[in-house]
Amino acid sequence: MIPDDPLVDLMLGDAPPQVWSLLVTVFGDLAQVEGTELGAALLGRLTGAMGVRPEATRVALHRLRKDGWIDSRRVGRRSLYRLTSDGLRQTLAASPRIYDLGPSPAGAWLCLANPAGPMPGGIGIVPAAPHVTISADRPASPDIATFPLSGPLPSWLRSQLLPADVVTASRDLCTRLQALADALADSPPSDPLQVAVLRVLVVHDWRRLILKVPALPDAIFPDEARIDTARALKQSLLQALPPPSLSALEQFTLASAP
Amino acid sequence: MIPDDPLVDLMLGDAPPQVWSLLVTVFGDLAQVEGTELGAALLGRLTGAMGVRPEATRVALHRLRKDGWIDSRRVGRRSLYRLTSDGLRQTLAASPRIYDLGPSPAGAWLCLANPAGPMPGGIGIVPAAPHVTISADRPASPDIATFPLSGPLPSWLRSQLLPADVVTASRDLCTRLQALADALADSPPSDPLQVAVLRVLVVHDWRRLILKVPALPDAIFPDEARIDTARALKQSLLQALPPPSLSALEQFTLASAP
Repeated sequence: MIPDDPLVDLMLGDAPPQVWSLLVTVFGDLAQVEGTELGAALLGRLTGAMGVRPEATRVALHRLRKDGWIDSRRVGRRSLYRLTSDGLRQTLAASPRIYDLGPSPAGAWLCLANPAGPMPGGIGIVPAAPHVTISADRPASPDIATFPLSGPLPSWLRSQLLPADVVTASRDLCTRLQALADALADSPPSDPLQVAVLRVLVVHDWRRLILKVPALPDAIFPDEARIDTARALKQSLLQALPPPSLSALEQFTLASAP
Repeated sequence: MIPDDPLVDLMLGDAPPQVWSLLVTVFGDLAQVEGTELGAALLGRLTGAMGVRPEATRVALHRLRKDGWIDSRRVGRRSLYRLTSDGLRQTLAASPRIYDLGPSPAGAWLCLANPAGPMPGGIGIVPAAPHVTISADRPASPDIATFPLSGPLPSWLRSQLLPADVVTASRDLCTRLQALADALADSPPSDPLQVAVLRVLVVHDWRRLILKVPALPDAIFPDEARIDTARALKQSLLQALPPPSLSALEQFTLASAP
């Protein structure tokens, strides 16, 4: 892997990612199995390949440890990092949406609360109108009238389901993921480090997008947001970039140490 | 038929009906076939049996003629009244709901208009919340989000579908129709005039109720309104009181003239 990988540049775009957030993705993608530890050297090579300076990586690791997200131990001269039980719990909670594990939302409900009373909290995830929300789950309260979403929704309602900046982010992500898929078709990844770096960047960008998107069926979002396209590209890229084994990654890192 | 028929008293209750409105029902029930004419003597016997003074009947016939609802002609010494084409048109328009002709509403739709814009007119028949209506028909406008009503509705929404006075009127009607059905089971109607009078009073009371009830499936109204019960009693009574032929009615009226 060359230090200035054009595929990495493609994925990084103009805005460099926040290092602590990038590390959350690294641990989430490579160390999600309880007890998995990532060495400081490997973490430095991964973030270095993404254009992050060693000092910035150290600061971010320190912050994540202080926040209780990761823990570390020393084994001889090596520093080994792992998710704490709290970091692991939050990572596992976000995984189904990021990796499309489990069933995707099959439908959604329009929820109407009594306009004469206060709007109950926690009902629905997108305010559609006064006392009206849209929810993937049917609320259990008998005081909420629920109606299945069916047929095409008017554009004003669909555009309420996603903020404009999320629509823009999704379209940008589609462009970058498509460019990466095209580039990989021409030149497949050459080593486990490149696979891991590109994979982490794909997961990272998708994670930052999808966690801003309500958990509703893709089909009800505005067409121009292309959430379904971004999801399909992400899935296809993660298949083309399967997670390398940690031992292969560590060995390659040692062997190719700069 | 005796002048003070206890069954008629039962149906009239405390509030005597407006005579012109009662005559609208008489013509709607007995003269809905184009060209049918009702003689002044028969009209006087029918309304008289309902406790209406002859002068009040004359005034009401005059008003209906002035309003273009009915027309009259003289044949020798007889005055014959019939619906005008306009009166007939409006009568036929109301008939399906009054007599349960044609299919009853199978379902209903919650309609949601863009809360950022004005509420479009003519969409839905019951305001449920700001920018929300309920309609038996799915509006065609692509700007209105529509959701099928399904499952039990919360009581606050069901009670919005009927004003409180309509709920009371329906419950009262149920009581009277049930009492009439019980009385007729003991003593079936004795002559065509009694049949016609009771039938007209049943239709009249039901007409005044149902035209205040939104054209939505009975099942979505509050249980305590008992609209479905009132409808079933009405149907059963109209079967027990089939419309007498006009000739039988005229002959009986002549033969039994006071």
